[in-house]
Parts: sequence; structure tokens; C-alpha cells
Amino acid sequence: MRIFNFSAGPAVLPTPVLEQVRDELLDWHGRGMSIMEMSHRGKDFTGVIEEVEADLRELMGIPANYKVLFLQGGATQQFAQIPMNLLAGRSADYVLTGSWSKKAYKEAQRIGDVRVAGSTEADRFTRAPRADELQFDPRAAYAHICTNETIHGVEMFELPEPPAGVPLVADMSSHILSRPMDVSRYGLIYAGAQKNIGPAGLVIVIVREDLLGKALPTTPSVMDFATMAEHGSMLNTPPTFGIYLAGLVFKNLKAQGGLAAVEEANIAKANLLYSAIDGSGGFYVNPVEVASRSRMNVPFTLADPALDADFLAEAAARQLSGLKGHKSVGGMRASLYNAMTIAGVEALVDLMQDFAARKA
Amino acid sequence: MRIFNFSAGPAVLPTPVLEQVRDELLDWHGRGMSIMEMSHRGKDFTGVIEEVEADLRELMGIPANYKVLFLQGGATQQFAQIPMNLLAGRSADYVLTGSWSKKAYKEAQRIGDVRVAGSTEADRFTRAPRADELQFDPRAAYAHICTNETIHGVEMFELPEPPAGVPLVADMSSHILSRPMDVSRYGLIYAGAQKNIGPAGLVIVIVREDLLGKALPTTPSVMDFATMAEHGSMLNTPPTFGIYLAGLVFKNLKAQGGLAAVEEANIAKANLLYSAIDGSGGFYVNPVEVASRSRMNVPFTLADPALDADFLAEAAARQLSGLKGHKSVGGMRASLYNAMTIAGVEALVDLMQDFAARKA
Repeated sequence: MRIFNFSAGPAVLPTPVLEQVRDELLDWHGRGMSIMEMSHRGKDFTGVIEEVEADLRELMGIPANYKVLFLQGGATQQFAQIPMNLLAGRSADYVLTGSWSKKAYKEAQRIGDVRVAGSTEADRFTRAPRADELQFDPRAAYAHICTNETIHGVEMFELPEPPAGVPLVADMSSHILSRPMDVSRYGLIYAGAQKNIGPAGLVIVIVREDLLGKALPTTPSVMDFATMAEHGSMLNTPPTFGIYLAGLVFKNLKAQGGLAAVEEANIAKANLLYSAIDGSGGFYVNPVEVASRSRMNVPFTLADPALDADFLAEAAARQLSGLKGHKSVGGMRASLYNAMTIAGVEALVDLMQDFAARKA
Repeated sequence: MRIFNFSAGPAVLPTPVLEQVRDELLDWHGRGMSIMEMSHRGKDFTGVIEEVEADLRELMGIPANYKVLFLQGGATQQFAQIPMNLLAGRSADYVLTGSWSKKAYKEAQRIGDVRVAGSTEADRFTRAPRADELQFDPRAAYAHICTNETIHGVEMFELPEPPAGVPLVADMSSHILSRPMDVSRYGLIYAGAQKNIGPAGLVIVIVREDLLGKALPTTPSVMDFATMAEHGSMLNTPPTFGIYLAGLVFKNLKAQGGLAAVEEANIAKANLLYSAIDGSGGFYVNPVEVASRSRMNVPFTLADPALDADFLAEAAARQLSGLKGHKSVGGMRASLYNAMTIAGVEALVDLMQDFAARKA
């Protein structure tokens, strides 16, 4: 029996993908061993990783002048690794839109010179910034944004436009593959796998080739994007199982019709939930400005926080899991990643309406 | 059908462990979700990681004044991460006994001041060094060794003894858990998972507490051992699936009777294979000095390399896989990790004897 898992990450994976993983776990494609037990340098696994990359390139329309890297350490390691690779003695600009972009900024301070190009913290991170609030340094090595803030539930639908020559670097961990994105507008995109891609322990970096080769001399070899690009992400042993599973997720998205179809489904799920919140007469509240509401992470509070525990208990009784909000914002959070079905959102909305009718 | 997989890593895992992973893949312990889909901060997963650590502590007899860290990036990232954490403005000594210790040394050079305390390269890395060949710096921050060289098949059964106050730091990637080790003789032990522990993408670090808190200020937070120890390896999302699977491997080793019983089985497997090599009248040759022969990785050459391809083809026909030697040394290599059964080694020895009888 599978329940509805609204966890922010690690998060729900597509059931058909997990069924395939289970069915071939002890014997991948008749090879007499698990994919996990296979040499990463053998032709079976190199075939897998090449296909995973090709499918990701097709799904996202990644231009030929971008490298795709399969790395470890999650987005948090990238918070340091990106300035190590891109700063090159200059400074970088950070746009603060929530907990994650703020963490990225603080971590980058350990590595070099960084500055804040704009922040919505005064509005408690409830919206994406307006263009006129951002002051970019035209000499910045890059401008960093987080295009979906997992904790605050803020998604960027309009991209900031830094000055010419300043590449945008985006943490897309919690909404990559949720809709088509124009990769060519970014210098670098990164995403931890454990939301829309696969299991924790894999992070994907998509980087424009001209940004490679500027790493600080003290950068560990496995953290130098240029070195990893040169070695096809296999300077050392990559997280093979996570890469394999990501590949199955990519096939699953392709079978659904690609990211345009995925976006349509995600809009339907998000609309259903936000309508329930907004139609509750204030019983449920989402604090985010409508135009910046994340389709992936929907934080909401109950008007009476004393009811939180009851709500979570009733959710659990209905097989709805992972709804407790992040401790920094409280209340509830429903994460509606690609693998969350509309049936799951319907079940949640049923609970919300039923609960409100009884408790309001 | 499962074949005999002699791959050096990623490598064979215990079949009963993989069966359990398969059986609970879609629904872990009745929770309605995979272990991969679970929040790392929920009580289910925190229970898992605590038990994994407790089992490892019991298996290895890890003293209370050592921290156990579950990290990412493999041993290769540790090659840089260890000097970042331990050098503290001093220099470190490296003992070179094969490809891996040499890589560790070269990578450490990117971070700080390191020197060679001794090397067996003049003997083509065919033995562990003698005590009188090693010159340690008494002011070194640490002395680094690789206690089992995966490529050269050299295992240390006697530990070097650096001067008082210089902690031993050991890469045990390819033989950790293969026999009892006295952890208290080391300042730090590290091991990539993909040989005797679990899937690639997890690296375990066991570090004495007094060595923590000396990281370079530019060390990324997730790479600072003290920070990760403080956060129970969960400053960021850990590789949850790999940790879970490692835990099943640890339970499996405990069920076998612990590391003393495991060592006995490993001695029997290694003896069987080395006897076949040494009893072949020179048809097969292992170049390593007898006292330094690895029980885990057994490289051997055929007297006539023109027969290599035939040997590998016959091995494949008998369902013996992963025997091709590392490109840097050629010939064959059989890795006899814990999960390789004696039946697998018997099948290999049968092939070797049969092949030699026909081709000699």
C-alpha cells in the first residue's frame, strides 16, 4: 500500500519507477547483478549514464554548449563549490528570496567576495523581487538566484536580468523539470536530486562551457567542474544507483509527454490546492503574493494554530503524510512535486474542506 | 539468476540484503513509502541512521571518543577534505604504497604542505613498507596510509608507527569490515562504501574527537568534520538510501558472527585463490610479497598475456564477471570482498586450473 507523501524532500517518486527498480534490483537487464554492483567504467553503466544525460538534454532542451555533470554533496555543497569554480578573484551577486538563497549567500561568503543584489526579507520572503529592487554589479562573476524557495513557497516566473556578461546561476532544486525552462538564459543551473529527480545523494549541474576552467587552485579535483566535465562526471566513482534511478524518472517524464505536459498537470494540482486555501474564508492562509506562488511547495497556516495537531492527526488517518510545515515558518506545507498525483491533492483538499467545515 | 561478480567496486553486495531492499522498496516497514522517499529529519529515518551507526560501532568496536560521519563524495573527495580539516597550518606525511595512496598525496598537495614519509614505488608497489624505510616528521599534523591498495593488491597487516602525537589517518576503502581492526590506533579512518559497505555515493569517516575543529576557514560547511559531527551528518540531506543499505549490510555481518567470523571466511577465500596461483607452476603470477598480499584484491597475470582474452571469455561463459585487471597493471584482478562467496572463488579456481591444464 502506498500513501500520499507531501514531504518536501526526500520526496515521493513515481510508483512505476519504483516498481521497475524493484523488479530489476537483483538482476539488471539479465546481467546477473544489480545496477548498484556494476563497475561504473563498464560498458553497461557508461551506456546508462550516457542515456540519462541524453534524456535530460532532450527534456530540458539543453544547448550543446552546456555540460551536464552528475555530482555529489547536494545543493548545499554547491553553495560553496559554485563560488570556488566561478568567482575567479571577482565578486558575485546574490538575490535573497528565502531561506535557501540566504544559505547559498552565507556559504559563498566562506569562499570569496559576495554581495546582496536585492532581498525580499523585509516582506518576510513572500514574493519574488521586482526588477527595480535589484541592483546588480556589472563586474560580478555571476548573479545567483533560487528560482523556487522550498520553505517559503516562492517561485520565480519572471527571471531577473543581470547586466550583459553577468551569467545567471540558479538553484532549481525544488522545481527543476516541473515546467519548460529556457536553459540558454542561465550560465549555470543546479539541483539536488531529492525532489523532482531521484534519491538524495545526487546533484545535477548544467553549466555553460565558457564558465569552466576558472576554479581556485585549492579546489579539490572532484569539485572542479572543468575536471569533472573532462571525465564525464567519472573522475571518481559517481553515485551510480541515483543516476540510474534519475534516468528512469526522465523516461517517465518523457512518456508523459515531456515538460509541457508535466507543467499542465502541475498547474492543475497547484490551482486545486490554492483554490481550496483561498476559498476557505481565511481558515487556511498562504502568505505568498499570488504571482509568486510556488507550484511545487505550498506552505499554509491554519487561522488557529491550536488546531495544527488535530489537522495532522486527521491527515495521517487519511494516509496523507509529510504535511507538517518547516519549523522556521510553522503551519503546514504540501509539496506537489511531479510524482504527486492529482488524486493526492484531491484527497488533501477533501480533508481541508471537511476539517474546516467541522472546526470553523 | 545471479552471477559471480569479482568487480573491484562498485562490487557485489550480499544477495539477502538485496532481497530485503527489493521486498521493502515500495513500502518500508508498512509506512506506505520507500525509504528513499522519506524525510531524513523524520523519526523513521533518524531511527535508521542511529541504528546504522550503533551497528557499525559494535562491529568495529569504535571507542566512544570517535565520531562516525556519513558523508558524500567518496574517498577521492576525502583526499582533499582530510587535509582541509586536519592540516591546521602544519604539514602531513604520506606513505606511498600504490595508486590510491599516491592519489591521496597528490590531491593533498592542492590543499597544503605534504611530504612523503616513505614509498615502495621503486619495487613497483609490490609490498608494504618496512618500519626502517619510513621517516616520519614528528611535527606532522598526521601520517596518511592506505591500508589496502585496491589496484596493486597490497594490504598492511602491520601498521606503521608514527612518532607520538602524530595520528594515523587511513584509507580503508577496500578492506574495511573485512577483519577486526583496532580503531584506537588511528586518528581517522575513512572508506568509500562501494566495496564492503553499500552502494557508491556514501563515504564513512571515523574520527577521534580531539582532531575536530581545526578546519581551514575556507572549508565548505558540509565538508567541515566538526560541523557535520555536530549535526549528526545531517547539516544537509544525507545519501539516505545508501545509509539504509549499509545498515542492512552491517546487520548481515553481525548475523555472520561479526568481523572475527568474517575474517575467517575471507582468509579461506584468499588462501584458496593464492594457492591456485602459486600452484600453477608460473602459469599465473601474483607479484605481491606473500606477507603483504591483500585478501580483498588479488591481481594476477597470465604468463602469456596473449591468452588474456581467452581467459576472460571463458570466465564470462562460466558466469564469472569483473575479472579484467586495472589498466595500469594489466592481467586479471579478482576482488574477494565480504559478499563474495567461497562458491564464487571455487568456481574461479576451477576455471583457472582447467584453463591452465588446456593451455599450458
